[in-house]
Amino acid sequence: MRGKGDLLLAQVARHIEDRIAHGRLLPGDRLPSERALAVQLGLSRNTVTAAYLRLEKQGTIRRVAHRGAFVCPSGPPDNPIEWSSKISRQAHLLDEPVLEMLAQSRLPNLRYRLSAGTPALSCFPLVPFRKAVNKILAKDAPLAMAIAPTEGQPRLRRAIAAYHQVESSHILVVAGAQEGIDLLARCLIEPGDRVIIDRPTFPGAIQALQAAGARLVEWDTAEWSIEALERLLIAYHPKLIFTMPTFHNPTARTMDEEQREKLLRLAARYQVPIIEDDVYSRTRLYGSVPPSLYRLDQHNVVIYLSTFSKVLAPGLRLGWIAAPPHMVKQLSLIKMRANLFTEGLSQLTLAELLENGTFDEHLARLRTTHTALQQIAVNALRQNFSAEELEFSLPRGGLYIWCRWRRAVDMEEVLLRAQQKGASVAPGRAFFAASPDENCFRICFTASSERDLPEAIRLLAEAFHSAE
Amino acid sequence: MRGKGDLLLAQVARHIEDRIAHGRLLPGDRLPSERALAVQLGLSRNTVTAAYLRLEKQGTIRRVAHRGAFVCPSGPPDNPIEWSSKISRQAHLLDEPVLEMLAQSRLPNLRYRLSAGTPALSCFPLVPFRKAVNKILAKDAPLAMAIAPTEGQPRLRRAIAAYHQVESSHILVVAGAQEGIDLLARCLIEPGDRVIIDRPTFPGAIQALQAAGARLVEWDTAEWSIEALERLLIAYHPKLIFTMPTFHNPTARTMDEEQREKLLRLAARYQVPIIEDDVYSRTRLYGSVPPSLYRLDQHNVVIYLSTFSKVLAPGLRLGWIAAPPHMVKQLSLIKMRANLFTEGLSQLTLAELLENGTFDEHLARLRTTHTALQQIAVNALRQNFSAEELEFSLPRGGLYIWCRWRRAVDMEEVLLRAQQKGASVAPGRAFFAASPDENCFRICFTASSERDLPEAIRLLAEAFHSAE
Repeated sequence: MRGKGDLLLAQVARHIEDRIAHGRLLPGDRLPSERALAVQLGLSRNTVTAAYLRLEKQGTIRRVAHRGAFVCPSGPPDNPIEWSSKISRQAHLLDEPVLEMLAQSRLPNLRYRLSAGTPALSCFPLVPFRKAVNKILAKDAPLAMAIAPTEGQPRLRRAIAAYHQVESSHILVVAGAQEGIDLLARCLIEPGDRVIIDRPTFPGAIQALQAAGARLVEWDTAEWSIEALERLLIAYHPKLIFTMPTFHNPTARTMDEEQREKLLRLAARYQVPIIEDDVYSRTRLYGSVPPSLYRLDQHNVVIYLSTFSKVLAPGLRLGWIAAPPHMVKQLSLIKMRANLFTEGLSQLTLAELLENGTFDEHLARLRTTHTALQQIAVNALRQNFSAEELEFSLPRGGLYIWCRWRRAVDMEEVLLRAQQKGASVAPGRAFFAASPDENCFRICFTASSERDLPEAIRLLAEAFHSAE
Repeated sequence: MRGKGDLLLAQVARHIEDRIAHGRLLPGDRLPSERALAVQLGLSRNTVTAAYLRLEKQGTIRRVAHRGAFVCPSGPPDNPIEWSSKISRQAHLLDEPVLEMLAQSRLPNLRYRLSAGTPALSCFPLVPFRKAVNKILAKDAPLAMAIAPTEGQPRLRRAIAAYHQVESSHILVVAGAQEGIDLLARCLIEPGDRVIIDRPTFPGAIQALQAAGARLVEWDTAEWSIEALERLLIAYHPKLIFTMPTFHNPTARTMDEEQREKLLRLAARYQVPIIEDDVYSRTRLYGSVPPSLYRLDQHNVVIYLSTFSKVLAPGLRLGWIAAPPHMVKQLSLIKMRANLFTEGLSQLTLAELLENGTFDEHLARLRTTHTALQQIAVNALRQNFSAEELEFSLPRGGLYIWCRWRRAVDMEEVLLRAQQKGASVAPGRAFFAASPDENCFRICFTASSERDLPEAIRLLAEAFHSAE
């Protein structure tokens, strides 16, 4: 038979359990102190203490010395973690479909890959590269394997600085242009900042800028109208202009020198910095290339970004930023917490190839190969598509032909059919920050062999014509 | 002689200029429409239009078709950009002094470098490495140089997955543990989230977590008390527990298996995930190592992180995360926008070294060398410091000896003097998220030669004794 003390104790415990059951006390909440509850209920403190002990024993609450008693989490103690509930809102914001689509286009079973942007790896200077790697491993293995400055291996920084005719302190080595964009976004963007970008533009830039919280405003590359840009500057007070003025990805358009000068003056006047994404200027096929914005800049308004991915090999993961030294310092602080520094052996090997002339010789060979491949792609496009159904650019540089299907079509369906046939192209909508032109797609003409390229385009045409 | 129209025009222009001068109209503001201003001032619209034209000609305002007239930026049109004013608040939050200090400790003129954490590079298996590099370049150069999956080269993922006895889909290759921490922080932390970290802990973790907006709560590694941890879980509702239970950096402490089991149960109960930073478990010198939290985990609460930097070479920039496949996918979406994928040649070379047994043989040699170096360091510490002035750990693994000066001293002054003598150690305060123990410092005993190590410690002792 239970005594009166037991009954009171059970009532106190029930009182607490009820408050938990009705959500008045939540997991982690602190319970009233034993003394306070005793006074409130008109009971002895011992009774309340005994009730709390029982609640603790049954796992309902947890008493912590000097802090009080707390409601325990309610689930069974062995619950596996629901990881997806732990992902931050920011990470969820990632445009997963676009990224998935890009990942899709790298499926290993694709025979004809016109999607990703890769230079002709058949031109890769393997013999001099191998020689350079072995030279570095024979002479400088400790340097290649040790902790290195975040800003980059001094030898590679010097080689790149010499190209720009600046001091090494202006150069930050990055693991490809994408890392450069991400570091710049993390350094410069506050959530909500407006950024002017080209319309269309590189999907990786859209992703990295949006992930940093930027709201993107599109500047149409069909004109690159300076008047239109000024209207955007006035209307949006943007933080940055992100532009790709030379052999633009995906359109391959190039801004002329007069436009560049006007753009620079406007940026200086409105005090809006320019990030010049100059990934493609060394992929010239015909004609001449205007000086970079960075070179023309008189007002310290341009940060310059480029990579060896599109002219040597993407697998090397080597690019660079050219910027005022204090910005190089600030960006390298961010890189330090992102990944400390960039891989050593590839940096030193590339420095060797830049110094011994291999890189320049390679660029000349690459140009010949890319020019031939472009001609093959253009011929195949003309053979397989009529001018009434498809319009496309005839670029003087870059790796891409930007195409637009003139008739109504379910582009997703077409590209899926092409993939099933083993051919992939980059869907146009990935290149727009807003209101995409769904009828566009991008062909990379440099990543396939002379033999595969016409076949890939033939399969693509088949996919189009069967989907209509 | 000026007509009445000219006078009125000048008055309108003055009216606008005054409003700008007094800050009633700011750069970027829209002016009243010409029609509205004409009505307001009782003038003809032509007069107002003429005044606006004059203001535009002198650069005060800018008229934009269909939008109206706007106040121009006031500075001279050729102002160079003040880049430092463009840096985001987030980037300014970086603990620049700490990062600067870390950068300082890598100064090239330092002869005796006990600061950075590097394994004995004299053990680096250069001959098999060179052989493996050449084999990859002969057989798999296109694979090494091409665009590769963000998750890592399949061959390296398989080799690492085999070690953990999991499927490849659980493995994400990262460019060193620092990238792993940064990706996890970007994936999981929302600004303001609490994260429980070891006290003290790796400065790079403090930096990356804080940069993602985490507020850090320290869990003292002197005890790794499970009761203390539960109090923290109750008091702070943290998002994550970030811990380094094996040969902890900097203290070299190891959590025993019973504590690990309790920690796992607690994490499951409170549904708080654990990130296990297991960078040092393969640097065992004596005794045995308890199973990792990841291996013991029954509740899917642990994400595991490690690197080859501390057992092979930091210059390789290769580490990995082991996690549930959907988290690997989520993290690789973030890595995709951070840098697309990790360098190819080093990944394939490392896979070769893991597969052909070189890595395991290397670990055995490394252990012998590190054990000898530790003995030399301990002897030198005992010779140059008395037990009354310096206490230090005697670790059974890791690369570090964690030291504490028992008397009052200006540690900054001591470390500066040591640097002037050419010897650097890692200052203790970098390892604390809050209220640092300034009297601590960390010695890396594996990065110096047998000859340099005693001399470096002698110089350090000189710096201490001269500063007192």
